[in-house]
Amino acid sequence: MFRLALINPNTDEHHTEAMGGAARAALPDGCDVTAVNPNRGPTSIESAADSVVAAAEVAALVQALPDYDAYLIACFGDPGLDAARELTAAPVVGIGEAAYIAASLVAKRFGVITTLPRSIPALEEGIDAIGLRSRCAGIVPLNIPVAEQGSGHPDTTSAIVALGKRLAADNGADALILACGGTADVARAVEDEVGVPVCDGVSFGAGLAHSLWRSGLRTSKTSAYGAPEPIPYVGMQG
Amino acid sequence: MFRLALINPNTDEHHTEAMGGAARAALPDGCDVTAVNPNRGPTSIESAADSVVAAAEVAALVQALPDYDAYLIACFGDPGLDAARELTAAPVVGIGEAAYIAASLVAKRFGVITTLPRSIPALEEGIDAIGLRSRCAGIVPLNIPVAEQGSGHPDTTSAIVALGKRLAADNGADALILACGGTADVARAVEDEVGVPVCDGVSFGAGLAHSLWRSGLRTSKTSAYGAPEPIPYVGMQG
Amino acid sequence: MFRLALINPNTDEHHTEAMGGAARAALPDGCDVTAVNPNRGPTSIESAADSVVAAAEVAALVQALPDYDAYLIACFGDPGLDAARELTAAPVVGIGEAAYIAASLVAKRFGVITTLPRSIPALEEGIDAIGLRSRCAGIVPLNIPVAEQGSGHPDTTSAIVALGKRLAADNGADALILACGGTADVARAVEDEVGVPVCDGVSFGAGLAHSLWRSGLRTSKTSAYGAPEPIPYVGMQG
Amino acid sequence: MFRLALINPNTDEHHTEAMGGAARAALPDGCDVTAVNPNRGPTSIESAADSVVAAAEVAALVQALPDYDAYLIACFGDPGLDAARELTAAPVVGIGEAAYIAASLVAKRFGVITTLPRSIPALEEGIDAIGLRSRCAGIVPLNIPVAEQGSGHPDTTSAIVALGKRLAADNGADALILACGGTADVARAVEDEVGVPVCDGVSFGAGLAHSLWRSGLRTSKTSAYGAPEPIPYVGMQG
Amino acid sequence: MFRLALINPNTDEHHTEAMGGAARAALPDGCDVTAVNPNRGPTSIESAADSVVAAAEVAALVQALPDYDAYLIACFGDPGLDAARELTAAPVVGIGEAAYIAASLVAKRFGVITTLPRSIPALEEGIDAIGLRSRCAGIVPLNIPVAEQGSGHPDTTSAIVALGKRLAADNGADALILACGGTADVARAVEDEVGVPVCDGVSFGAGLAHSLWRSGLRTSKTSAYGAPEPIPYVGMQG
Amino acid sequence: MFRLALINPNTDEHHTEAMGGAARAALPDGCDVTAVNPNRGPTSIESAADSVVAAAEVAALVQALPDYDAYLIACFGDPGLDAARELTAAPVVGIGEAAYIAASLVAKRFGVITTLPRSIPALEEGIDAIGLRSRCAGIVPLNIPVAEQGSGHPDTTSAIVALGKRLAADNGADALILACGGTADVARAVEDEVGVPVCDGVSFGAGLAHSLWRSGLRTSKTSAYGAPEPIPYVGMQG
Repeated sequence: MFRLALINPNTDEHHTEAMGGAARAALPDGCDVTAVNPNRGPTSIESAADSVVAAAEVAALVQALPDYDAYLIACFGDPGLDAARELTAAPVVGIGEAAYIAASLVAKRFGVITTLPRSIPALEEGIDAIGLRSRCAGIVPLNIPVAEQGSGHPDTTSAIVALGKRLAADNGADALILACGGTADVARAVEDEVGVPVCDGVSFGAGLAHSLWRSGLRTSKTSAYGAPEPIPYVGMQG
Repeated sequence: MFRLALINPNTDEHHTEAMGGAARAALPDGCDVTAVNPNRGPTSIESAADSVVAAAEVAALVQALPDYDAYLIACFGDPGLDAARELTAAPVVGIGEAAYIAASLVAKRFGVITTLPRSIPALEEGIDAIGLRSRCAGIVPLNIPVAEQGSGHPDTTSAIVALGKRLAADNGADALILACGGTADVARAVEDEVGVPVCDGVSFGAGLAHSLWRSGLRTSKTSAYGAPEPIPYVGMQG
Repeated sequence: MFRLALINPNTDEHHTEAMGGAARAALPDGCDVTAVNPNRGPTSIESAADSVVAAAEVAALVQALPDYDAYLIACFGDPGLDAARELTAAPVVGIGEAAYIAASLVAKRFGVITTLPRSIPALEEGIDAIGLRSRCAGIVPLNIPVAEQGSGHPDTTSAIVALGKRLAADNGADALILACGGTADVARAVEDEVGVPVCDGVSFGAGLAHSLWRSGLRTSKTSAYGAPEPIPYVGMQG
Repeated sequence: MFRLALINPNTDEHHTEAMGGAARAALPDGCDVTAVNPNRGPTSIESAADSVVAAAEVAALVQALPDYDAYLIACFGDPGLDAARELTAAPVVGIGEAAYIAASLVAKRFGVITTLPRSIPALEEGIDAIGLRSRCAGIVPLNIPVAEQGSGHPDTTSAIVALGKRLAADNGADALILACGGTADVARAVEDEVGVPVCDGVSFGAGLAHSLWRSGLRTSKTSAYGAPEPIPYVGMQG
Repeated sequence: MFRLALINPNTDEHHTEAMGGAARAALPDGCDVTAVNPNRGPTSIESAADSVVAAAEVAALVQALPDYDAYLIACFGDPGLDAARELTAAPVVGIGEAAYIAASLVAKRFGVITTLPRSIPALEEGIDAIGLRSRCAGIVPLNIPVAEQGSGHPDTTSAIVALGKRLAADNGADALILACGGTADVARAVEDEVGVPVCDGVSFGAGLAHSLWRSGLRTSKTSAYGAPEPIPYVGMQG
Repeated sequence: MFRLALINPNTDEHHTEAMGGAARAALPDGCDVTAVNPNRGPTSIESAADSVVAAAEVAALVQALPDYDAYLIACFGDPGLDAARELTAAPVVGIGEAAYIAASLVAKRFGVITTLPRSIPALEEGIDAIGLRSRCAGIVPLNIPVAEQGSGHPDTTSAIVALGKRLAADNGADALILACGGTADVARAVEDEVGVPVCDGVSFGAGLAHSLWRSGLRTSKTSAYGAPEPIPYVGMQG
């Protein structure tokens, strides 16, 4: 039986639970998903300053939860991904990379909808790092704060749909990625109204993690992802 | 129940069956794999001239087998992949791209072992196209004809192991991809002796196809992968 | 005397003849051009599915016409180009690459006009592969079906001229490439009205092939373009 | 008077002091350097797992030390650099980027000597991110643990000199960067014996920070480096 | 005492003096700046034809002024930079590269305002060569001749401000570079009204040159920047 | 009748004549080649310092010889190419770009043999600028001064052959480019003994220039290559 640890890097437990459910739904019967989040740090991650705090917490959680078959880091910026891979021999997948890989398999050009303009450079850097810059048709900001979003807010959904239509018509996007906190309901609405696949990193990322495990693939321990050298640490509690 | 069509682009039925078995083993219980190959064309694919014949056959087979949940094109060069995606709304995965994606998830730098030096530029172009050139530590040729390879030939296995060790030690590869026709037995031997993951595109590609389907993702039909314009064809039989 | 085989990958004989004439006009006196097309396959090529059929036919035609001094593959997507180079020691040129090379020699930034939006990603991939992505100012679709185009249709010509003016004014294109089936008459009209060179791959490609031959350059046979390994083929007639 | 805060991301106070001295020596008379380090975290940084802990500490220190004219993050991997830039309007420089910029101004191709092979991919990613991959002649590992290095250990110095000579002779490096913990004495010995500039990020980075400040340049606060949104944090002490 | 030779590649002495003053103001007390220009060549540089004449003059001036601690080539296109580095062991900095480096340190995405559209490709090539293409948010032309510009012409300033606002709002630029001949007064006005740093290559370039010198870094003389081979020259006077 | 002006940027008249002959031999009967060189400047070009002097002379010669159908700049570094294109509406080709384009048409990976290691970075920059970095298998130095080379020196020829064999065997080069001053005799010997095409920029470049002219293509005059603005020049004689 496959046991996945989903780590939400922020401290919003409601979000942790929702993503745990999405991951569970994406896996074959009999798989087990444990969804956790740190007990310290930001309730959502909207800056590099938030991200460095969250990355350290992700690494600590991987060490605290050592016996899983795979790990899914469930924040679009994939904070702490390389560190997590050093700290376990199980496969580790980030939902950001999962969303981009999904898009690259079902479409030629993906568009990304994010929350705020300030996030665009970091998203572009992530897409560069994964090698898919030439596949990105554009990134546009929603300009609605996370706290006001959701499928219960028709305005948010219709704003996302409008941006999706623009990315499809003007930028040639034939797939969309919601990096703006939209829920599964929103994704479905966008898919229906824009007519292109909406690539969700949580469910596809859970599938990737399972597929790696099922194919017998584990994180390489011989070089960059080897266990860290035993450096002395000071001042750490626990 | 998930039904996968595995299309071997060459006409070697023995190889078709073996890959069908590997795909089946990689999928959850209850999934179905139909493994087919064209009845015309090369028995193996070792040149662009072989590949153009095979690509046309792959496209024809996708049209001839319309009702599957996903398709896996089971030749390392992924011949006919874009055409296949135009011809179905189901997800289509190539084993070449699957192997590279697997390697990018479990290691920082992959090495590739191919059969002949002549294939290296085409492999590099494929890696460029998928955006992973900076992750490739090197490509080395085995220089043993396909006909003489296999786990029954200890020399082949030991030659592959030796090349894998060289890629790890000299090029910093922390994962390997066998684009040289090696069997599952060879992969296991290499993994054991070199100590790095060997990424097999057939089993992980089957997993990718299943994960896309399970996440509700279908090939986008709005732009590049839309159904082809109804151009008149002449001289085609059947 | 230089003997060029121009291979039109589609089955439109009228188009074959027109391109044969353009190639002939671009070569020095005394050169000979044989213009052929397959007797099976699509009458025009507007998708990857069309292209894989055409590529296999191109390869077969090169083998069927072995004694020419050079070959020109006369379809903008250059289908079967690598295969053709394996199958002969004579130089082989594609009209797509020829058009891009011409533009790179007479201008800093070229714009491309294509027929349908769906072709844009494949054109971008071709430009990437030839290394000229940074020289491309933009690709815009004409959105008029091939069947309705031509110099006899003033609307098509004026639509192409309008797109050319937009590429020059808004995108900074100082050369244009018509990948939308326009004839020589259209090209002249665009050149006159937009005021920038229009780079035609058929006439310049014929010149490239002749220049290679005249300089004593033949396709390298030592590595990627070496004659294919003698793989057994099954089910092929003739 | 220019006041620089040098932040050593690791907890080795001896190293903090030494780097503070180097920065002071590189600045004009009358400048002030405060050198600090976190009181928790690794004593040296040799993995991504170490780095995520250190990055969070760097961000906290910038917030705790708000009134400086510029900040220098003094660890080769530049941990927390983007976060630090969000948290202040003063200029922030990393010693890794400083070393690469210095090399790009005095030479065509730099070579990098690092401690362990495992660090090479992360160094390559950093060089990619800064846009200087084509200027990098190679990265080679010293394979001597940090604890055993130093100018007091003649073997370390001679090993670094030998690697430097190899990078110059075989890879064409005409500048060197020591990312392997070497001291100023080692740098001088390498410069003398290899005959190429050795680019030190601490002294040049201090100069960069001063030059930005002196030119009136401050970190942009309008987009990616704007002050973080006021997200609620939980569980943080202090 | 640091002695900088600022070389204005054009023959406009008024501009030479103004840039000398800006460099002097950017350096610590006690530094000396000698500002010179050739006595032949174009009074401003607005084409490659102007630039090749100026580059030869820059090289001649470096040879004619051999005893400086560093050189600053004070024209945005950095004409003759590589030649100058061959002809001296002192550090040589160009104001174009200096402006781009400054922008990369204080912002994520810079916008460039140039004089004429014809200069955009050369600017893009310069940004490519320095590795910062992905950091460039856009380049827009002012379309006002140099002769009519200046802080004494309110129209020019307001046109530059308007373009800067457009680059910030539409392209996401969070820093600006004036490659359009604007003076220090204009830069200040743009900074105030657009709200982003305006990166001036003269003052920051002087700082870079000083920082290299202060860190003990000299131009590498072992490879590409080694003293030229003693080739015979004919027909040169003086 | 096609009239080509071949401009040798250095002042070696013997070399000018030899290249004029090679260009003439590569063109169809009835074409005319005028081969010229400046009367001031270096007798060969082996540094950036030589190159800036030569580039200014090339620009002056294009202006002094205005009535040709095309221009060929006959030095591997293509000095003054952009300036020349501004100064004429006729096509202008450089022999460096011609050699790379030829290689890209007959082979997958070219190797370059140059004279001295110091030239390698500039060659790599030229290959980058033309977009063919991924096609370059390697650049190796001959380390024999130009003055001692030639087909009359068996040692030089055999050294070039040996380097060519190494580039083919170890780097996978299937075409070679001699950027080391070798004559036509040497090229033939290398082609015979290494067994791969040797791409000569003079003869193929003449063919390129002729093909552009024959296809009616002229240098674009609307943007970057438009005639320079009429800037005042001072101190120029003649």
